[in-house]
Amino acid sequence: MTRDLRICLVGDSFTAGTGDRTGAGWVGPVLAAPRDDGLDVTGYPLGVRRETSLDIARRWYPEVRARLRHGTDHRVVLSLGANDVSAPAGRRRVPQERTLEVLGGMLDEAHAAGWPALVTGPPPGTEAAYTDRVLALSAAMAEVAAARDVPFTDLAAPLVGDPAWAEAVHAGDGVHPDARGYRLLAGLLVPAVRVWVA
Amino acid sequence: MTRDLRICLVGDSFTAGTGDRTGAGWVGPVLAAPRDDGLDVTGYPLGVRRETSLDIARRWYPEVRARLRHGTDHRVVLSLGANDVSAPAGRRRVPQERTLEVLGGMLDEAHAAGWPALVTGPPPGTEAAYTDRVLALSAAMAEVAAARDVPFTDLAAPLVGDPAWAEAVHAGDGVHPDARGYRLLAGLLVPAVRVWVA
Repeated sequence: MTRDLRICLVGDSFTAGTGDRTGAGWVGPVLAAPRDDGLDVTGYPLGVRRETSLDIARRWYPEVRARLRHGTDHRVVLSLGANDVSAPAGRRRVPQERTLEVLGGMLDEAHAAGWPALVTGPPPGTEAAYTDRVLALSAAMAEVAAARDVPFTDLAAPLVGDPAWAEAVHAGDGVHPDARGYRLLAGLLVPAVRVWVA
Repeated sequence: MTRDLRICLVGDSFTAGTGDRTGAGWVGPVLAAPRDDGLDVTGYPLGVRRETSLDIARRWYPEVRARLRHGTDHRVVLSLGANDVSAPAGRRRVPQERTLEVLGGMLDEAHAAGWPALVTGPPPGTEAAYTDRVLALSAAMAEVAAARDVPFTDLAAPLVGDPAWAEAVHAGDGVHPDARGYRLLAGLLVPAVRVWVA
């Protein structure tokens, strides 16, 4: 039987590609890469703007369940945290310990359902305090993933101080980058996804 | 306040862009058009392979509800019917009257939720009997939509006998076209969507 790969990409506005006028976001190149490697890939992008890990946790399971019925290989990319560390009212929307707890729960559910997972954290922002919270959360998310043998791709540490990233965010809405920024995110994710599905 | 348009595109494998290796499907150009017209557009593609109208009816409301919380203008494209008229076991999966009932119910729910809708039917197939069922269903779906003042785009009648469509389906998997076929579908949908969001 030919391998028939189905991947759900669950997350927030960065997964939805907000600000990328081409519509591709990082999801486009991440699905194109295994396709170029000869795999039969169906991708289901499930990013929703403004969602924290708590919002995502509330909807992800039935949405993924409905999409991973057929095919031979069912996988989930979980991308979260940007809205957890954002602090529109001076206080972060979700405390770090809660984000980690929610992520751990989702990974345990994915494992129980037989869906190999890959996790990514949020990219850096333009404000130092925000980026510091992103870096700390990403490091802690990596540990939660590692404890379950799940691969984690850090989108923050490699892009902090990268002028191309800063420029792309500046050209976007100040939070989300333009298409160039999404290509930078894809550049970090594509190699990880290639190893993961190999 | 700037207009902030959020569109959910609910459907089956044709909405998911199955067979289009570029990943764009018809959803890509349909979202790009109002964006090129200067609108701020967020698109949420919600096509799931193999789903009949009954499957779609079961999941669409909570999925759309989760995505149409913010923004100023909430809309839904409903694209269904291809799997209803397919007959893998010699009998169509969903009788036409049932499809129409389900569509009417979804349109009434969308109206009650304050989401303007646009409806499309399935494109033609390679088998005459299948295409006849698609044409009949499309004509009936158009009436269900018209009775509610909802625009309907027929994807079947304009493509029956079009050698470019037949070629694209042949180059695809025999049911879904390749990227060229999705561009033909987008060519029918883009003008309708432009009028609808104007």
